[in-house]
Amino acid sequence: MPIRATVWGENVHEQKNRLVAELYPKGMHGALVDALNADPEIRATSVTLQDPEHGLTAAKLAETDVLLWWGHVAHGEVSDAVVERVAEAVWSGMGLIVLHSGHFSKIFKRLMGTPCNLTWREAGERERLWVTAPNHPIAAGLGSHFEIEYEEMYGEPFGIPEPLETVFVSWFQGGEVFRSGVTYRRGAGNVFYFRPGHEAYPTYHLPVVHQVLRNAVRWAHNPAKRIADPNAAPNVPVDKALEKIVERGGKLHAPGEEGFR
Amino acid sequence: MPIRATVWGENVHEQKNRLVAELYPKGMHGALVDALNADPEIRATSVTLQDPEHGLTAAKLAETDVLLWWGHVAHGEVSDAVVERVAEAVWSGMGLIVLHSGHFSKIFKRLMGTPCNLTWREAGERERLWVTAPNHPIAAGLGSHFEIEYEEMYGEPFGIPEPLETVFVSWFQGGEVFRSGVTYRRGAGNVFYFRPGHEAYPTYHLPVVHQVLRNAVRWAHNPAKRIADPNAAPNVPVDKALEKIVERGGKLHAPGEEGFR
Amino acid sequence: MPIRATVWGENVHEQKNRLVAELYPKGMHGALVDALNADPEIRATSVTLQDPEHGLTAAKLAETDVLLWWGHVAHGEVSDAVVERVAEAVWSGMGLIVLHSGHFSKIFKRLMGTPCNLTWREAGERERLWVTAPNHPIAAGLGSHFEIEYEEMYGEPFGIPEPLETVFVSWFQGGEVFRSGVTYRRGAGNVFYFRPGHEAYPTYHLPVVHQVLRNAVRWAHNPAKRIADPNAAPNVPVDKALEKIVERGGKLHAPGEEGFR
Amino acid sequence: MPIRATVWGENVHEQKNRLVAELYPKGMHGALVDALNADPEIRATSVTLQDPEHGLTAAKLAETDVLLWWGHVAHGEVSDAVVERVAEAVWSGMGLIVLHSGHFSKIFKRLMGTPCNLTWREAGERERLWVTAPNHPIAAGLGSHFEIEYEEMYGEPFGIPEPLETVFVSWFQGGEVFRSGVTYRRGAGNVFYFRPGHEAYPTYHLPVVHQVLRNAVRWAHNPAKRIADPNAAPNVPVDKALEKIVERGGKLHAPGEEGFR
Repeated sequence: MPIRATVWGENVHEQKNRLVAELYPKGMHGALVDALNADPEIRATSVTLQDPEHGLTAAKLAETDVLLWWGHVAHGEVSDAVVERVAEAVWSGMGLIVLHSGHFSKIFKRLMGTPCNLTWREAGERERLWVTAPNHPIAAGLGSHFEIEYEEMYGEPFGIPEPLETVFVSWFQGGEVFRSGVTYRRGAGNVFYFRPGHEAYPTYHLPVVHQVLRNAVRWAHNPAKRIADPNAAPNVPVDKALEKIVERGGKLHAPGEEGFR
Repeated sequence: MPIRATVWGENVHEQKNRLVAELYPKGMHGALVDALNADPEIRATSVTLQDPEHGLTAAKLAETDVLLWWGHVAHGEVSDAVVERVAEAVWSGMGLIVLHSGHFSKIFKRLMGTPCNLTWREAGERERLWVTAPNHPIAAGLGSHFEIEYEEMYGEPFGIPEPLETVFVSWFQGGEVFRSGVTYRRGAGNVFYFRPGHEAYPTYHLPVVHQVLRNAVRWAHNPAKRIADPNAAPNVPVDKALEKIVERGGKLHAPGEEGFR
Repeated sequence: MPIRATVWGENVHEQKNRLVAELYPKGMHGALVDALNADPEIRATSVTLQDPEHGLTAAKLAETDVLLWWGHVAHGEVSDAVVERVAEAVWSGMGLIVLHSGHFSKIFKRLMGTPCNLTWREAGERERLWVTAPNHPIAAGLGSHFEIEYEEMYGEPFGIPEPLETVFVSWFQGGEVFRSGVTYRRGAGNVFYFRPGHEAYPTYHLPVVHQVLRNAVRWAHNPAKRIADPNAAPNVPVDKALEKIVERGGKLHAPGEEGFR
Repeated sequence: MPIRATVWGENVHEQKNRLVAELYPKGMHGALVDALNADPEIRATSVTLQDPEHGLTAAKLAETDVLLWWGHVAHGEVSDAVVERVAEAVWSGMGLIVLHSGHFSKIFKRLMGTPCNLTWREAGERERLWVTAPNHPIAAGLGSHFEIEYEEMYGEPFGIPEPLETVFVSWFQGGEVFRSGVTYRRGAGNVFYFRPGHEAYPTYHLPVVHQVLRNAVRWAHNPAKRIADPNAAPNVPVDKALEKIVERGGKLHAPGEEGFR
């Protein structure tokens, strides 16, 4: 069965900005869907901010193996309830790929627990991504590096927790560097942040970027059955203890009581 | 100059539950303050949930090098604004030590980005903490392990991100294990979670626990000047680029415009 | 194409100790091979210490996707040249699963860079392995924990580097804990250490252990083409620099000279 | 008491190459010693390859809190026995700072368990080191970045294990990037690799580099008493088990027998 990828697109600039609309006539989400569907083992669809519940209903998340997230100007319009629902899906085992300006999305900041800030410059400069983890699944089929001729600069320090693995580090023409591909695990969910993708440039039409995205979807996919309740904190009663023990000492909780949250 | 430690105490059970009140007549926060002040290089004070802004005003955080957090029954009563203020202080460089049931505090979940859940049992059973990182500063002066005769059980899986370092792993009489001492870095702030400390037992009167807490305060202290704005995402204009570049390509942002959040 | 697994067996106790010979009439390596071959996507074979070059010729390693290693009494008899060859294969992308007393094998110590020591006791006590990374591929199909009724105890501190991921933590009847399943990446190779497997007990006949081993083989398999020379440190001449630069300053190396090692 | 730092200098180029001799009339080790001793809390001395046992006798290591290592052309002349002695000192708690071409030293490769390879170019190009872990103790007193006008290029992929923390990432004029400051813990010892320091340039005369080195010495210093035997793997007899257990099952080891290595 193919991996079910859902691309979440903010879909605002495509509607309001002629440059973006011309670069991405099907929307950035449309370009991403096409890129993923070129892989027969992936079946991608898209939803957008404007859909009811931003397209991220419980049902949609339940049938999404890997979610890709592109947002920029409208991070604040994403409902907190939907963000929490997505976070729970990740903890349960859904993969998540956060793209470019998504570094400031609510969901990425929610899962990182850090500001996720950086420095930036929109000057169409050259970016060169070096593979720092050779033969990592996300770097499959790439050489030692690849270039994107026109990109926005993102510079360190990048306000993220120490990554599980650093897969790409970028060189920028104007003198900065950036950890451009980093992995995390949050609960049962695999998370990948991938830097390139400024809406004013044709980044998501580049074959090498398509390759990375397809690799990332495969990597992020956790085939295990989702965890039913990723927040569960079950009490283990004394008589169910795996080793025989006798209750003793003071008691705060009445028998059968739920834990406090 | 001594390290300025602030103990945040929920201070609810001490007021309502006779058992806890008798064990901790000065409050759990009071016992923690005394334990820390036994170290001449630490100067500890306490604040509680009931104080205005829970005692965690901007001014108080500015003069706190390391914050210790004990809460349990009233996590939900902590204001979201205060939680965000504490998170920003951590990102700026304040140390944070989260104790026991604080695993479910808003601030710990905020910084971890995960559910922080676990299994539990209140049966006064024996816990033995093994030092898995010998000679780690937080384990200074300890042997290979130490025991707490009466403790609540917390069992794996513990819903946290992979730690930077695992310092303690607990054995429980009833058959469970738990990663009882784990470190993280969030922004410029050092974070330590320490498991023991159920309010129905005299854990915070034990000298070995005092030793760990004092060690942890010293470890968590970052003497660097606080970062002024840990969320800053400054634009670097083309004419300020460290390497000479020429602007080119499409433009989304008008000159001098702030980035989107 | 199935994953090609090679089981390296020390095969000494099986020849000299009646107890081990009776438990493992086909050798421990034989039991491991059978367990893996029950998975149609794995094709396992075995080699032993007694084979020429311990069975680990360059040709054999080239056709091994994942190597499993069980050794105990004869670590010192393994040739340093073979150890280095195996290390290079791992760096090139071969997976490696180190079992039980293999914690003191030359290859594991070589790849970890640490003593890999621990405490131990042979008393046939109960071990309970808790899954600390729910839904990790290595824990596929397991519940929250599993038990092995008769096992040797290994206790913390375990002298390893901080793992990439901690998948299992063991509880022992006699009071110890141990990080029983830990992952690493060394070069392009995935490495997994799995604790259980004392030769005096029937551990490698247990279905749950078979499940872990098959999971681990699938996880450790890196399908990418092997890196040709994992030690290469190529010079990039000035005229091949990706950005145009002009040579300047003092020179230590003559043109075209190899780097020092 | 000041931190006792020992600088290990290869001291070969200084004797044979006029350029290096002129840049470093007291030897590179001499320049490093002076830089460290400018800090009243550090007391630095040096030893060299040419000293008996390369200056790294058991006695010298016992009174060294932090060892700095600079070598290049003569890695192969360092005795394996001395390397092992240094590794054991690190596991016991001695700090280690490996400099520049020391990436290929026996001791660094020994502790990493990986090839530690990279790409390189000697062209006197500009290097800019970005601080990726703001307010990390090793970055104390630095701004967001610093530049070295003339340096050798080292490029990714850098064949190291995933670092505990990445403190610096370098930008090079010729188009490469490199993880230039990375931390590890090996046993009780803190390890830091710092990239700059090609012998054909005056890098070790730069105040900003001196600052990093002094910071690194303070960070690497573990004040705990050294671990007596970092390789110990003690047996815990049944009658000394912390929880009462009864021996059962088969036995491989005779009572009181040492473990196999």
